Amino acid sequence: MVNINVGTQNGYEIHIEEGLLCRVAEECKAVLSSEKILLLTDSHVYPLYGETVSRALSDAGYAVSEYVIPAGEASKSVEQYLAVIDRLAADGFSRSDAIVALGGGVVGDLAGFCAATYLRGIPFVQIPTTLLACVDSSVGGKTAVNLSAGKNLLGAFYQPRLVLCDPLVLKTLEPSVYADGMAEVIKYGMIRDPELFEALENRAWTDTQIIARCVSIKSEIVAEDEFDNGVRLLLNYGHTIGHAVEKCSKFAVSHGSAVAIGMMVMAKAEPNGEALAERLEAVLKTYGLPTRCEYAADDLYAVALSDKKRRNQTLHVITVPSLGNGRIVSIPVEELHTYLQKGLSE
Amino acid sequence: MVNINVGTQNGYEIHIEEGLLCRVAEECKAVLSSEKILLLTDSHVYPLYGETVSRALSDAGYAVSEYVIPAGEASKSVEQYLAVIDRLAADGFSRSDAIVALGGGVVGDLAGFCAATYLRGIPFVQIPTTLLACVDSSVGGKTAVNLSAGKNLLGAFYQPRLVLCDPLVLKTLEPSVYADGMAEVIKYGMIRDPELFEALENRAWTDTQIIARCVSIKSEIVAEDEFDNGVRLLLNYGHTIGHAVEKCSKFAVSHGSAVAIGMMVMAKAEPNGEALAERLEAVLKTYGLPTRCEYAADDLYAVALSDKKRRNQTLHVITVPSLGNGRIVSIPVEELHTYLQKGLSE
Repeated sequence: MVNINVGTQNGYEIHIEEGLLCRVAEECKAVLSSEKILLLTDSHVYPLYGETVSRALSDAGYAVSEYVIPAGEASKSVEQYLAVIDRLAADGFSRSDAIVALGGGVVGDLAGFCAATYLRGIPFVQIPTTLLACVDSSVGGKTAVNLSAGKNLLGAFYQPRLVLCDPLVLKTLEPSVYADGMAEVIKYGMIRDPELFEALENRAWTDTQIIARCVSIKSEIVAEDEFDNGVRLLLNYGHTIGHAVEKCSKFAVSHGSAVAIGMMVMAKAEPNGEALAERLEAVLKTYGLPTRCEYAADDLYAVALSDKKRRNQTLHVITVPSLGNGRIVSIPVEELHTYLQKGLSE
Repeated sequence: MVNINVGTQNGYEIHIEEGLLCRVAEECKAVLSSEKILLLTDSHVYPLYGETVSRALSDAGYAVSEYVIPAGEASKSVEQYLAVIDRLAADGFSRSDAIVALGGGVVGDLAGFCAATYLRGIPFVQIPTTLLACVDSSVGGKTAVNLSAGKNLLGAFYQPRLVLCDPLVLKTLEPSVYADGMAEVIKYGMIRDPELFEALENRAWTDTQIIARCVSIKSEIVAEDEFDNGVRLLLNYGHTIGHAVEKCSKFAVSHGSAVAIGMMVMAKAEPNGEALAERLEAVLKTYGLPTRCEYAADDLYAVALSDKKRRNQTLHVITVPSLGNGRIVSIPVEELHTYLQKGLSE
């Protein structure tokens, strides 16, 4: 088993191993002294793994309440948040009882925010079931729900007690969902790790190896900058433009695909970046990710501006002048237009 | 000026001085690099101090939004919480913008929870305007709102950037509201500080001295036990029975009066505690606080049990075997009945 220690103020471990899902109960026993557990999962995941996990926890002596949200981003809402909290209160959960989140980013973010705020914080354990959740949202303690005014407007920094990654669960993912996570994996290679990037080019590593490396990189970055004021910005490589692509498409383009496009734009806009941009393009294609979008520089710029940014403001963008060396660069917002024009040209 | 440093993970200072309200803007400038400030206050406090503070902050260059909630516990609700968050989003508050809470415990708890969770945490400054808020809720980072299922069910541990106590504002308090805070002040003397207790008996100290001492005691305790798992329980002296009194009265008895009664019960139930119980009774009367209640042991016990406690469970109560030496004692729930019987007898 791979164990990675995340060195935040309240540190915790991430365990990665094929078949780990079968040992959920003993893993939980090691960190939770709870009587009760709320198993929070979604309508996609529940039929696949929910009953197994639920039974294992019950057999281990926990009183398990199941809470199944409809799969999809719409469940990351204030209404769903308050409904989960009401359920915790109705079931008499105390401060030592716990939430186990079984699912992707939506389940993890919602469960984490509930755990962060019910009775001012109860323990939670995260079992990510998508590649994206394994390598991204399960590390770093960002929890949140969306408001009509914007995504992730309500949330907290709150660390789980334990994260359990079982790469076998990735076998049941839709290829497009797997690819979505792969965009973030490729990002880690670009900003920080040539070895990982080359392994991806050659399809040389197992999912376990890939997840372990990504989680290590993110934990290092998060331990340095738990509250997202500095080096953690590196993780936004491709994201400013990616978000604009998502918005322009009215979220028809997935997050991973949008980040892939955003990284391509930044790579192509890099002075003397042709060779690396070609390698990035090839590796994105290898994993079924898009490298182009149909939107014009003007449209993406307008949307990026509307996203809480204003003229005369300074913006941080992430550039990768050479493989593995991500940098945080402060630019006037207007310069984003130059990046877009360069990066979108053929 | 008295400056007390609270040594939590994210430490901050509490400044105490008569007339400090006139220097709000410069004090804020020292800790906030915000463009925007939401001044959150209530309908009692706004006419007294709201405009002054608002104008001072505006004059100092902050873009000030005012948000005035109806005075009273009913405003510590999820509805009010979401309304404040919507306002922050509508006014385009960013992660570096701030909330200034001007008011008592309700304003502070609500503002703190909004600050803790909007964009995963923005800075806030607390300006307590009641004695209770000065000595209790402004120290320790407990923020919360109530749900219909119970009080303080949603919340977070979140520290302000700065607390500004101006004891002059206490001059405009209703005597009963001042007395309410005095119950907690007396509690600090009982559990931890004979010198403070004697000063109260002799009315020897100014409000500034009293607040400074209470804040020091609470900061020490909170720094030792930020997340409320140990010594912080001492602060609950008189509170288990106090809560039962509040509930029996359907909250007609104020929190401070209920805590006063709760402390009296515990003091009278203490073996060989007659002398200290008499001193406690005298000092409570000095400050206009009740020492008796009309409820019977059976009634209070039943209500205390319904408050998330169960038979066969262990309960922590705080006892004070000698002045200044509060202790955490673990008892079977049933034994609470014995305390009530002894403590309520004449």
